[in-house]
Amino acid sequence: MKKELQLKLTIRLYTDDNERCFGPGIATLLSRVREHHSLRAAAISMNMAYSKAWRIIRTAEDIFGCKLLDSTIGGPHGGGAALTPAAEQILAAYETYSNDVQAFARDHFDREFGFFRTLSAQ
Amino acid sequence: MKKELQLKLTIRLYTDDNERCFGPGIATLLSRVREHHSLRAAAISMNMAYSKAWRIIRTAEDIFGCKLLDSTIGGPHGGGAALTPAAEQILAAYETYSNDVQAFARDHFDREFGFFRTLSAQ
Repeated sequence: MKKELQLKLTIRLYTDDNERCFGPGIATLLSRVREHHSLRAAAISMNMAYSKAWRIIRTAEDIFGCKLLDSTIGGPHGGGAALTPAAEQILAAYETYSNDVQAFARDHFDREFGFFRTLSAQ
Repeated sequence: MKKELQLKLTIRLYTDDNERCFGPGIATLLSRVREHHSLRAAAISMNMAYSKAWRIIRTAEDIFGCKLLDSTIGGPHGGGAALTPAAEQILAAYETYSNDVQAFARDHFDREFGFFRTLSAQ
């Protein structure tokens, strides 16, 4: 059997009392809110219950000590949600950081796991 | 509220057809086998069912195309399991790689998330 190994790297942020506060789930949720202008539509697009989406956002807001979503009233989208500047800042930091760590990890992958090609070719 | 953010980074290896083959779970399992000289004792030490431990090892063996555990007969531990040279090589590569990526991630954490201290102090 000859297969290629793929790397999957997950970055999560916890508080010092081990409460999960940011990771791939909330990052996707926030970017979907940005796209759909609504937490409910964002949750639906991820097959996530609205109550769960709301809880994830609320927990992160408590930990970061700031609002992540602004309610919008009326306008072209008929009211909904938008990211606060703090949410934009956190999301951008998480995305930049994830990309940097991914790039490093990919660059070093073959050095450590190159032997696997020899193993799997035997 | 003022909390410190902690980083948790998970590295998993998948095959190109998206089958999970190596990650923190099997890495711990293998190092416990090395410690306890038995897959059953390793599984118990992780509160894992023996059948699950066996399945994890078997799946990885199929993907890597080599044995990960040798059965030992008799000896000071009364028979049990030991890591094969291939398992030692894979485990060492995973540990070295995880440590390298962790070190890079830690070094770059403050650059991206330093602003959080300001946010949480507001």
